[in-house]
Amino acid sequence: MEQITVLGAGSWGTALAIVLADNGHKVKLWGHRQSLIDEINTTKQNKKYLPGVELPENIIGTSNLEDSLEGVQTIILAVPTKAIRDVLSEVKKIVKNQLTIVHVSKGIEPDTLLRISEIIEVEMPAQLLKDVVVLSGPSHAEEVSQRHITTVTSSSKTMSAAEYIQDLFINQHFRVYTNPDIIGVEIGGALKNIIALAAGITDGLGYGDNAKAALITRGLAEIARLGSKMGGNPLTFSGLTGIGDLIVTCTSIHSRNWRAGNLLGKGQNLDEVLANMGMVVEGVRTTKAAYQLAQKYEVKMPITEALYDVLFNNKAPKEAVDSLMARVKTHEMEDLVNIMEKR
Amino acid sequence: MEQITVLGAGSWGTALAIVLADNGHKVKLWGHRQSLIDEINTTKQNKKYLPGVELPENIIGTSNLEDSLEGVQTIILAVPTKAIRDVLSEVKKIVKNQLTIVHVSKGIEPDTLLRISEIIEVEMPAQLLKDVVVLSGPSHAEEVSQRHITTVTSSSKTMSAAEYIQDLFINQHFRVYTNPDIIGVEIGGALKNIIALAAGITDGLGYGDNAKAALITRGLAEIARLGSKMGGNPLTFSGLTGIGDLIVTCTSIHSRNWRAGNLLGKGQNLDEVLANMGMVVEGVRTTKAAYQLAQKYEVKMPITEALYDVLFNNKAPKEAVDSLMARVKTHEMEDLVNIMEKR
Repeated sequence: MEQITVLGAGSWGTALAIVLADNGHKVKLWGHRQSLIDEINTTKQNKKYLPGVELPENIIGTSNLEDSLEGVQTIILAVPTKAIRDVLSEVKKIVKNQLTIVHVSKGIEPDTLLRISEIIEVEMPAQLLKDVVVLSGPSHAEEVSQRHITTVTSSSKTMSAAEYIQDLFINQHFRVYTNPDIIGVEIGGALKNIIALAAGITDGLGYGDNAKAALITRGLAEIARLGSKMGGNPLTFSGLTGIGDLIVTCTSIHSRNWRAGNLLGKGQNLDEVLANMGMVVEGVRTTKAAYQLAQKYEVKMPITEALYDVLFNNKAPKEAVDSLMARVKTHEMEDLVNIMEKR
Repeated sequence: MEQITVLGAGSWGTALAIVLADNGHKVKLWGHRQSLIDEINTTKQNKKYLPGVELPENIIGTSNLEDSLEGVQTIILAVPTKAIRDVLSEVKKIVKNQLTIVHVSKGIEPDTLLRISEIIEVEMPAQLLKDVVVLSGPSHAEEVSQRHITTVTSSSKTMSAAEYIQDLFINQHFRVYTNPDIIGVEIGGALKNIIALAAGITDGLGYGDNAKAALITRGLAEIARLGSKMGGNPLTFSGLTGIGDLIVTCTSIHSRNWRAGNLLGKGQNLDEVLANMGMVVEGVRTTKAAYQLAQKYEVKMPITEALYDVLFNNKAPKEAVDSLMARVKTHEMEDLVNIMEKR
């Protein structure tokens, strides 16, 4: 039984708070909007993000960051990628002891090209940071909150930290595996959003399941190509945080990246899509970052490059997809062999 | 422009006949049912299998096998796996010259444990067999017949034969890649039907997308484990005929294996399911064959084994799935590393 703090009261932060509460831990759930926190505490529901789900008694909402961090050794960072630096800059003013920080966001920072665990290491002074752990995998928050069976991966440079987080979260419904390859886990989780955007586009254009399966297959290959070059283990991309998360994100209409892509495929431009979505579409930022990474590491990423042109250079989605599919390449293995070369 | 014969006038045989006809070839489409052939020739439609699709003029239906084989050097074998030996035993009585045989079926023969290309090599005398090629990949027939973009792999022990078939089929919508690894291509195509059955069961039980993504991920790992041990290239399982075909089969309600699994998950037993489906469910036979292969090659295949118990030992689907998910295994890489060991 521990005291754990979850920062971020969106759907995923709340779902993870439920898992921890189910396991008997005392959970503080921090969110910056007072009205949402009041609702959580008075109605024991988070109607906006997880409608119809009753929150366990041992989840206490708070909008006071100082209060939320009092006496905790472990925090779950469940805020949007874009907000991580801001939140951590507040956290480090408050805490006095070393924290284990578990992040559950998926993205790469454009321009700096840092993974999220690296952003955390940059933002938090060493004397306040014990370990960084990432929890990632195919996991719709709605299903987790309804205790549907879900499998995720806990990864850290420090194996004992990954195992500690595994122990905190694991239960009958929420199965947690460890993987020491934090680079591969973070790259797979971030870049799947690019492929989900592209899959949404092909669906929006009405291209069908055959084309989408080809896109997902090639998408996985280009993620693995980049991730391996960055130091990830090629096998990680065949696991839960690679192909597993990619499948769930590309084939579910609940995925916001897929939905954004779908609107692009149906003819809206990026500004219209973002206005219509009314929430963060992580894949848009990640596409920019991955495009920069592809250049830095000299890796061919045709889907990422095509999507970059659609998002930032006004290329017509149909033209981008058609030229992707028509690429002159007759031998399938070309796509795959150089993933393995570095082994 | 060649004369090509397609044996089997089901949905996939007819769709492939359309691709060949679109490319200008003269196609004879053989089926044993006279009424279906009459319909194809008089209405230029195959209403039972591809409703609403108009067949090109250069497809001629015939129910006379001798007539269909006259003067051809290349045949596409698109009959159900179970019928292949019977059809070939007739073919070899008729033809006089060496044939290139392209098979497009997916399965492993129980007890003999032969792949389909091996069955063809056993059935056809060497003096009548030039090459065996397999055409496989994520490809719903309905979408191919509507000229939606589709990607498939052409594979053969003889690279020039794979390239010849690539040339016959490739066009703007139907993209064909070559892969020399015929073992990996056939194993991936066959075993994905097992995982589709299992995915149908989890969906029938109401388990959600997170569980299904975990199942597909682990399913790919066990396919790759067996296939690599049988001599396939591990990379093939990350390609179109591996993960690509697996995704399309597990996530589409059009897949008959998924549908059969779905009925099992909803409480029907195997006999009821097969009676209700009224057509071949290839995954049932393949589960038996893969179970035998796992024993022969001493490979752990937990999903195949669980499904075998459901199909043939009356194990309750929920019990089988729950014990799969609860397996004691904390380190994700265990699943994956031994795929690569043989490299």
